[in-house]
Amino acid sequence: MSASPLTPDQAAEVAQARAHRTETLRPTVPALEEILFQPLPVLDHGFVRVIDYMGDDSAIVQAARVSYGRGTKRVSEDAGLIKYLMRHWHSTPFEMCEIKFHVKLPIFVARQWIRHRTANVNEYSARYSILDREFYVPAPEHLAAQSASNRQGRGAVLDGEEAVEVMRILRDDAQRTYDNYEAMLNLGPDGGPKDPARQGLARELARMNLTLNTYTQWYWKTDLHNLMHFLRLRADPHAQYEIRAYAEVMIDALARWVPLTHEAFKEYRLGAVTLSATAMAVLRRRLAGEQVTQETSGLSKREWAELEAALAGSGGAG
Amino acid sequence: MSASPLTPDQAAEVAQARAHRTETLRPTVPALEEILFQPLPVLDHGFVRVIDYMGDDSAIVQAARVSYGRGTKRVSEDAGLIKYLMRHWHSTPFEMCEIKFHVKLPIFVARQWIRHRTANVNEYSARYSILDREFYVPAPEHLAAQSASNRQGRGAVLDGEEAVEVMRILRDDAQRTYDNYEAMLNLGPDGGPKDPARQGLARELARMNLTLNTYTQWYWKTDLHNLMHFLRLRADPHAQYEIRAYAEVMIDALARWVPLTHEAFKEYRLGAVTLSATAMAVLRRRLAGEQVTQETSGLSKREWAELEAALAGSGGAG
Amino acid sequence: MSASPLTPDQAAEVAQARAHRTETLRPTVPALEEILFQPLPVLDHGFVRVIDYMGDDSAIVQAARVSYGRGTKRVSEDAGLIKYLMRHWHSTPFEMCEIKFHVKLPIFVARQWIRHRTANVNEYSARYSILDREFYVPAPEHLAAQSASNRQGRGAVLDGEEAVEVMRILRDDAQRTYDNYEAMLNLGPDGGPKDPARQGLARELARMNLTLNTYTQWYWKTDLHNLMHFLRLRADPHAQYEIRAYAEVMIDALARWVPLTHEAFKEYRLGAVTLSATAMAVLRRRLAGEQVTQETSGLSKREWAELEAALAGSGGAG
Amino acid sequence: MSASPLTPDQAAEVAQARAHRTETLRPTVPALEEILFQPLPVLDHGFVRVIDYMGDDSAIVQAARVSYGRGTKRVSEDAGLIKYLMRHWHSTPFEMCEIKFHVKLPIFVARQWIRHRTANVNEYSARYSILDREFYVPAPEHLAAQSASNRQGRGAVLDGEEAVEVMRILRDDAQRTYDNYEAMLNLGPDGGPKDPARQGLARELARMNLTLNTYTQWYWKTDLHNLMHFLRLRADPHAQYEIRAYAEVMIDALARWVPLTHEAFKEYRLGAVTLSATAMAVLRRRLAGEQVTQETSGLSKREWAELEAALAGSGGAG
Repeated sequence: MSASPLTPDQAAEVAQARAHRTETLRPTVPALEEILFQPLPVLDHGFVRVIDYMGDDSAIVQAARVSYGRGTKRVSEDAGLIKYLMRHWHSTPFEMCEIKFHVKLPIFVARQWIRHRTANVNEYSARYSILDREFYVPAPEHLAAQSASNRQGRGAVLDGEEAVEVMRILRDDAQRTYDNYEAMLNLGPDGGPKDPARQGLARELARMNLTLNTYTQWYWKTDLHNLMHFLRLRADPHAQYEIRAYAEVMIDALARWVPLTHEAFKEYRLGAVTLSATAMAVLRRRLAGEQVTQETSGLSKREWAELEAALAGSGGAG
Repeated sequence: MSASPLTPDQAAEVAQARAHRTETLRPTVPALEEILFQPLPVLDHGFVRVIDYMGDDSAIVQAARVSYGRGTKRVSEDAGLIKYLMRHWHSTPFEMCEIKFHVKLPIFVARQWIRHRTANVNEYSARYSILDREFYVPAPEHLAAQSASNRQGRGAVLDGEEAVEVMRILRDDAQRTYDNYEAMLNLGPDGGPKDPARQGLARELARMNLTLNTYTQWYWKTDLHNLMHFLRLRADPHAQYEIRAYAEVMIDALARWVPLTHEAFKEYRLGAVTLSATAMAVLRRRLAGEQVTQETSGLSKREWAELEAALAGSGGAG
Repeated sequence: MSASPLTPDQAAEVAQARAHRTETLRPTVPALEEILFQPLPVLDHGFVRVIDYMGDDSAIVQAARVSYGRGTKRVSEDAGLIKYLMRHWHSTPFEMCEIKFHVKLPIFVARQWIRHRTANVNEYSARYSILDREFYVPAPEHLAAQSASNRQGRGAVLDGEEAVEVMRILRDDAQRTYDNYEAMLNLGPDGGPKDPARQGLARELARMNLTLNTYTQWYWKTDLHNLMHFLRLRADPHAQYEIRAYAEVMIDALARWVPLTHEAFKEYRLGAVTLSATAMAVLRRRLAGEQVTQETSGLSKREWAELEAALAGSGGAG
Repeated sequence: MSASPLTPDQAAEVAQARAHRTETLRPTVPALEEILFQPLPVLDHGFVRVIDYMGDDSAIVQAARVSYGRGTKRVSEDAGLIKYLMRHWHSTPFEMCEIKFHVKLPIFVARQWIRHRTANVNEYSARYSILDREFYVPAPEHLAAQSASNRQGRGAVLDGEEAVEVMRILRDDAQRTYDNYEAMLNLGPDGGPKDPARQGLARELARMNLTLNTYTQWYWKTDLHNLMHFLRLRADPHAQYEIRAYAEVMIDALARWVPLTHEAFKEYRLGAVTLSATAMAVLRRRLAGEQVTQETSGLSKREWAELEAALAGSGGAG
C-alpha cells in the first residue's frame, strides 16, 4: 500500500480544507470531523474519504418523534428508541441522515457497487478526461483459486508459482493496454500531442482499451438507511473480498458518525439471522427435546448445513 | 395568519436550537443559517422550516470537477459552470446537495406533494398520536370558482354571499368532525378518558372522521436536483394555489442556500419555454418574414394560443 | 358488502374486456387470466382488480439464468432455483415481473399505501373530477378500542352502545360533509348547476371538506420484488386491519400468478423470523442445555417476550 | 456485422419461443409481436431483443382517464389525449406501460447506460460464469479523433494509417488479455482444466484482466416514461455514438409498440427545443422587428450559437 493514496495536489487540497473551520447551528459529530476529507486507504491504490454528512443519532430520534408525536414520551432514551426502530425495520427515520463519500476504486468493483441504485453518483468521466495509470493487482494472499464447490466463491490461495504467473499477467496486461491507451490518444509526456502529425483517438473511444482493474473514482452520496443496506450486503462474507474491503472501512466511519445506530446495526443486521418457516419448526422441535436430523427436518441438505452453521455461530443462514 | 405558527413548546425548541453553535469543517452557508429552524409561515396555520442542509454552490462545482477531471480547467468560474450544468441538464452534480425541511400542511396538499417520490419523508402518525385541532380555511381572495373553460383551473373569486356560505361550511364541518373525533377517542380536556365507562375508539380508526383540510406535518428531505424539479412543477401557475404557496417560500430558501444555482434555475427552468417541433417550424417561418396563422401553422388552437402567450411573455408554453 | 363493487358502467367494461381474446407470444398465466379485470371485493365498497401482468415463474428463472450464465446448469429445477433466489435475497430476477392493479380504497388507507415509493400510481384526480358518495364504515367486529399497552395497536372490540354511537358518527359526518361538498360545488342532480345564480366552488377546493374515509381509486403498478416487500409489511399482524384486508386479497392473486414464488414467499418471508445477535446467542445456550431467563439473556423484557412468541410459533420476532 | 449475433443455442431458443402462441385477455400489439425475441443487430456483435411488454397506447389513455375521471369525456380522441399528456409532462400514465429488453453491449457502453437508475437490471455475472471472447472494435468510419473544440465530442475520422494502427491495437490487446484471462482460469478447450496441476484463478478475479470493450449482456426492464427519458438523452447528437446506436434501434421498437406515443415523443421531445428566459426575450425582440446581436442579446457566445443553430433547424439548444 502506498504511503498516501492521494496525489500531491489532492493532499494539499485536503490540508487546506481541514484548516478552514466555520460555525454552524447544524448538528456536528466531532468524531467524524476528525477524519473528514482524509483518505482511508483501501486495496493497493484505493481510498474512501468522508466528504460531508447531514445529521447524527439525535436527528434520527428527532425524526422518529415527529412521526410518533406526543405518543412517544415514554420511550425517552435515545439508544432504546434507535434499537426499537432498527428492530422493527422502521426505515424512514434513518433516511433523515445523509453522507457523501469520495471513493477511488477499480472499475470491476465500481460495477458491483453501482447495482445499489438508491444513491447519487458523480463519476470521473473518461469521455472528458484521461484516466490515471493505476490498476489494482491483488496481494498474494488474496489471489484465490476458483472454489470447486461454490461457483461464486473463492477457494484456497493460489500456489506460489501460479500466483507469480497471475500477478505478472495482471501487471503486464494493464501496463501494455495503458501504454496503448496513451499511444492511441497520441499523448506526449507534457500532456500535449506526442506526434504532431497524428490526430489522436477520441478519449471516449480510447478508454475501451483499458482493463477492468483500472482505478476510477466517484462521489457517492446516500442516506443512512440505504448505506446500511449496502454495508450489510457488501460486508457479508459472501461478498467479493475487494468490495468487502471498502465496506469494512465504511463501517468504521459509520461507528464514528452514528455510534448508537452502529451498535443497533451490529445487533439487528450484521449479527442477526433470518430463519425460514421450516427452520423455525426444526428449532421448536429441538427445544422440545426431539432429535431432528436433516432427513426428518424438511430442510434441504444445504439449508440444513446453513442452519447448523448459524446455530454454531460460524456463519449466517441464507 | 397567526403571529407564530409554532406552539410554545416548539418555539422554545427553536430558540434553544438556535442558541447552540458548533464548529465544523463542512461547508456552511451563513445566509441559510440565519433562518435555520425558524418557521416561514404559509397559508393560515402552515409553515416551512429548514432543519438541515448539506453542501452549497461550491459543492456542486466540486462534484462536477470530479466528473470532468483535468479536462475542465478552462471553465474556471463557478457561476459559469453552474449555468452550464443547468443548461445542459447535467443533474448529478446538483444531487450532491441535500436539504431537510419540516413542513406543516393541510392533508389535501400533502397528498399532492407525496407524488414526488424521490424524497425521504417522516410524517406525523395519526395511528400513534392525536392530530391537533387545526384546519385550513382559504382566505376570501382565494375562494375561487370552478373554471368554466379549464377543468383543472380556478375561475373568478366567489361572490360575497356564496363565499361567506362556503367559509361557514368549511369551518363548521371541520369543527364538528374534529369534535366527533375527540368524542370517539373518548378524550377528556386533560388528555385522559372523558367518560371512564367508555373504551375509546382506536386512534388509527378515529382519524378517518377528519376532513382533508386538517393540518398534518412531516420532515421532508431531498437532494437539490429533485427539489428544483418539485419547485418547477409546484411553483408553476397551473399548480394549485395552496401548494404553490409552499413552493414560493421554498424558492426563497433556495436563493439563500445556493444563490448561483438559484439564478441558473430562474434562467433555464422557471423562465424557460419548451417549444415543440412544429412550434419551432412556425418560429422559423415568422423570422423569415412569413405571415403564419393558426390555420397554416400545423398547431392546434390551444397550442397556438400557448405559443402566442409564450411569445408575449405572459405564460409558459406547455 | 355490496353484491358488486363496480358501477354498471364499469361492470359492462369488464364484461367487454373479458370477451376479447388475442394471441400472444408472451408468457401467459391461465390461473391469473381467469380473474383478470374482475373486482375482488375488499372492505365495504373497495376492490382490487388485476389489470395487466408481465412475466411468470419461468421469467424469473430465465432472468436468473442470464445472470448466472453457463454456470447454473446444475440448478436445473425451477422451484429449487426460485427458493434459492428468495432465500439468498437475490432480488433482481423477481424485478423482471410486473403487475398492475386497479384499487378502490379509503383515502386514509391510500395514505399508508403510498409510502411505498417504488411503484407507479395514477390516482383519480379530485381536482378534475367529482368524487363519488362512498365512504368506509367499519363493520362492528372491526370497531376496535385503542390498545392500552401498545400505542399503535387495537384493543378489544368496542362495546355495543359505544360501537353504535361511533358508527352513527362516522356515517352522519361523512354524509353531511359530502352533502356540503355537493352544495359548495353547486351540483344539481343532473350534474349541471343546482342554482344558476351561483358560481360553484372550484373542485380542487371543495374536496377539502371530505372526510378521510371517502373512497378514492387508483391504478398501481409495481414489480414482483417490490410487491412482495409491500405484502410482507402490509399482511403483517401489526399492520392496520384495513390495509391488511387489501394485502390478503393481493396475496391470493400472487398465488395464481407465480405459484412457485408464492410458496417461497411463504417459507422465507411471511413465515420467517429474524433473530438478533443476542437472541441467537440465547438459542445456542438453550440448545446446549442451559436454562436461560430474561434476566440472564441480555434481552430486554419486550425482546424476550417476542423471542418466546416466535419460538411458540405464535408471532414474529421483531 | 455478423449474419446473426446469436449463438446457435440462442437462435434455437428464439425459434422455439416464437413457435409457441397462447391466448390472453391482455392488450397485445401485433407489430411488436412480429419482432418479439428476435435480435436487432447493433454495432459489430451486439443486439437488442424485446423480450416482453405490458400495455399499449390504449393503456395510457385508460390510465389517464382514471386520473381525470368523468371530467375528460371531451378529450375523446386517443391521439389527442396522448399528445396532451406528453405536452404537459404528465408522466404517470406513461409509467403504466412496461417493456423488457435483452441487450448485448460492450462494458463501456453498459457503464454509461446504468446511470439511468429507474430500471431493473439482470446482468450476466462474471463472478459465476465465463465471458465470451467477443469485443467491440469500431468500424473505420467511427474511429473519430478527439475534438479540438469540445472535450466531450468527436472530431473528424482518423486518417488511414492512424486508423489502421488503432484498430490493430484494439484487436490485439483484447485478444491478448482474453487469452490471458483463459490462461489464468486454467481453462482448457473442452471447458475443463487445461493443466491438471494448476488450480485456476477465481472467476471473480480473472475478469479484471478484460478490456472495457468486452461484450456483456443483460435483461433491462423499464416503464415507458423512463424509457423515453433514456432515449431522449441517448439518441441525442451529443451522446456517444456507440450508445446512440442502441437508442436508435430501441426507438424503432417504440414506434412498433406505441405508435401514437412515438409520434408525440418526436413532436414534444426529440424535435422540441427548450429556450432560456433570455433566449425568449431575444426572440420577442426579433419578432418585433429589432436587430439583435450577440453583444446586445444578453447571451454568451456559446448560447448565442446554440440559439442560432436551433432557429436554423440544425441542432438543439442546450
